[in-house]
Amino acid sequence: MRAEAGLKDAALLTDLYELSMADAYVGLGKNEPATFELFVRKLPPERGFLVAAGLADALDYVLGLRFSPEAVSFLGEQKRFSDGFLKFLESFKFSGDVWAVPEGTIVFGSEPIVRVTAPIAEAQLLETFLINCIGFQTLVASKAARVIYAARGKPVVDFSLRRTQGTDAGMKAARATYLAGFSGTSNVLAGKEYGIPLSGTVAHSFVLSFNDEEEAFRAWAEKNPDNCVLVIDTFDTVEGARKAAKVGKELLEKGHRLAGVRIDSGDLIDLARRVRHVLDEGGMTFAKIFLSGNLDEKAVWTAVANGAPVDAFGVGTSVGVCDDAPSLDIIFKPAEVTIAGTKVEVMKFSKGKATLPGVKQVYRKAEGGEFAGDSIGLQGEDVEGAPLLAQFVSNGTLVKSPETLEEARARAAEGLGMLPQQVRRLSNPAQYRVALSPALSALVEKLKARRA
Amino acid sequence: MRAEAGLKDAALLTDLYELSMADAYVGLGKNEPATFELFVRKLPPERGFLVAAGLADALDYVLGLRFSPEAVSFLGEQKRFSDGFLKFLESFKFSGDVWAVPEGTIVFGSEPIVRVTAPIAEAQLLETFLINCIGFQTLVASKAARVIYAARGKPVVDFSLRRTQGTDAGMKAARATYLAGFSGTSNVLAGKEYGIPLSGTVAHSFVLSFNDEEEAFRAWAEKNPDNCVLVIDTFDTVEGARKAAKVGKELLEKGHRLAGVRIDSGDLIDLARRVRHVLDEGGMTFAKIFLSGNLDEKAVWTAVANGAPVDAFGVGTSVGVCDDAPSLDIIFKPAEVTIAGTKVEVMKFSKGKATLPGVKQVYRKAEGGEFAGDSIGLQGEDVEGAPLLAQFVSNGTLVKSPETLEEARARAAEGLGMLPQQVRRLSNPAQYRVALSPALSALVEKLKARRA
Repeated sequence: MRAEAGLKDAALLTDLYELSMADAYVGLGKNEPATFELFVRKLPPERGFLVAAGLADALDYVLGLRFSPEAVSFLGEQKRFSDGFLKFLESFKFSGDVWAVPEGTIVFGSEPIVRVTAPIAEAQLLETFLINCIGFQTLVASKAARVIYAARGKPVVDFSLRRTQGTDAGMKAARATYLAGFSGTSNVLAGKEYGIPLSGTVAHSFVLSFNDEEEAFRAWAEKNPDNCVLVIDTFDTVEGARKAAKVGKELLEKGHRLAGVRIDSGDLIDLARRVRHVLDEGGMTFAKIFLSGNLDEKAVWTAVANGAPVDAFGVGTSVGVCDDAPSLDIIFKPAEVTIAGTKVEVMKFSKGKATLPGVKQVYRKAEGGEFAGDSIGLQGEDVEGAPLLAQFVSNGTLVKSPETLEEARARAAEGLGMLPQQVRRLSNPAQYRVALSPALSALVEKLKARRA
Repeated sequence: MRAEAGLKDAALLTDLYELSMADAYVGLGKNEPATFELFVRKLPPERGFLVAAGLADALDYVLGLRFSPEAVSFLGEQKRFSDGFLKFLESFKFSGDVWAVPEGTIVFGSEPIVRVTAPIAEAQLLETFLINCIGFQTLVASKAARVIYAARGKPVVDFSLRRTQGTDAGMKAARATYLAGFSGTSNVLAGKEYGIPLSGTVAHSFVLSFNDEEEAFRAWAEKNPDNCVLVIDTFDTVEGARKAAKVGKELLEKGHRLAGVRIDSGDLIDLARRVRHVLDEGGMTFAKIFLSGNLDEKAVWTAVANGAPVDAFGVGTSVGVCDDAPSLDIIFKPAEVTIAGTKVEVMKFSKGKATLPGVKQVYRKAEGGEFAGDSIGLQGEDVEGAPLLAQFVSNGTLVKSPETLEEARARAAEGLGMLPQQVRRLSNPAQYRVALSPALSALVEKLKARRA
């Protein structure tokens, strides 16, 4: 599923100026080939890498982009657009090429994630959506990879839907976290649409709907004998664990095993230890302990590093909104344009917002099963390393399918495994080596000299 | 438009456990009336108030909530739900009551924003979506109100779409910022669906598609003679202003006035002054200066407080993702349930996560055109002040339409104007007085005593 697929006039999910510029390009006879590249200028604080995500949605949008009569009519009412441009939109269909790194690929700052070559009006019209789509999913996949690193093999489940920024974000967060290595999601629609395993326990409200906690636990066990996870912190967590053990014993007598308990508040590490003790004393050695409640990668790391007896984590808000860095400095900029019939490499010189010129490719070296440095070079340049960008769309036609979610997940797992430890760590990561190739360096120098 | 309206099986935009609990309630014969309340436990740092938003979408969702045969069949495949519950879902239609504060109402921590009374399974099934929907829109409207305060009357436009967390967030951010007082948006679909005025200039990429800046400016002026705003920081901003003035003079000779220039990078305050000087010297005294580029309420405040000659602001990412506090501590908790045929007020005692019991109302006093303290009391209690929650849905039927966006915007403007200055300020705001009514205080004491 793509959230935008059900949205009427998704073509208008763009900034007004994209349409104004496209109008000008068409009207000025300047709708000639250009190459735009999507990349993250600078990684958020504490980040050593990103996990690229969102390409499947992006390709779907690009190839399906049409302007309905209603959309064109709305634009006409704005009295801003030329008749010729409105006609252009009526028959709009993307006719260019798209190159991209497959979903799940590890990327770094300045490296192109998507590269579009098309008549400039077409490329320009993709800007807003591509940034939105790839930006958010890459943001969340990258955050989720940090949680996975912190959990060191213990399963982590996405609980973010209620606090994501809208429902499209909820769907994309479920998908991006799974891509990055999460084991499941509580988001039922994401389970249905993406095939992600569903996970869920029970809430405090259920406990509160009974006269006492033990009665609530017993009722839940009765309804869920083989899948019974009890939330034990509504009143007193340790006392809750005792009641859980009691109800677990009753379950056992009926031939079922208590699946586990969930702790959602308080000093989670200390409570996990005390609860483990109570469960074990009560013969519930097989019952698992799930932790949730405002967890992020640092809380997960602390719990695991302190040997807290935790079996799985539910992580929601922090990953779903990427709380410590809720946006990426991601942009879509021209790298080459056509001026008076000639292809010209371009770069932006704005202070702190400079860009790299030319149609680029990323070349990655690996040594001994580890990534050993990237070069950003020109497409077709002879540079050591495997090229990361592959062609997905040629002349408006899909020539390579985006990876399935499972394939992207496997690719992310492989890439995360090949990242040097010092680049992967949660705090103060080492900077991975990304160099400019000889040809790209020379091009930058040439353009700088021309401007000086 | 509601983003979810186009979404197939939006009913599944819920956490798995909501369905599991609903199944248990139905199966255990416990699907009796309950009241749940949606509220923000604690305001984000630096916040003195919130602007409630999102009710129109929420009501739309609640009243339209149905489970398609495909959705029910998917749930059946999970082997987690009883046949009786799947049947219950097949004919599901919300049958309860909804009370809420109208959109645009100023609210504070612990105050109910939405109150749902319904058979408990129905109320429970709304939890995830209501939190998501009201939470995000309230978050953004509240952030936008800070920007409006900082801008002190200068127009602010929403530029957030490209960096919002998904496209649903982009639509909701455009709506919520307008509700809070923004003047327009760059989001074309939001303009179409919500009637928000559209705004846009031109990007650096347009400038880069020409051999030189002046040529690009001239082309843009040719295409947009009456609406020409030039982006002048692609190379050197002051030099860009000189070229803009030159092209503006040419426009003037043809009977058109240069609308303005946009500065998107660098030391914005210093540049605005220098650009103003260049424009004035060049006879472009009427040309406006628009600032954009990673602005937030503090940057806007600084620019205005320093007397920077700015006419309008474009604010994007910081508001669209609420960068300094990207989620609200917003929850939906039972306040009263039915146990064995008797209504029982409930509260949660979890450490740091306690809730208030009983079916509540908020009473607000005003004095001399200023809000003068709220009381959270029981519904129907005789408390001084105007009640904030009104009934929108009765027995599953809409009995009061949500306000239009313009009405909500007017309400927000009125409410913001009545907020004491010290509560409204951007940093270290004073805490607005929210008291518990006598009856509610007594109820809390009674329940605490019963637990002890």
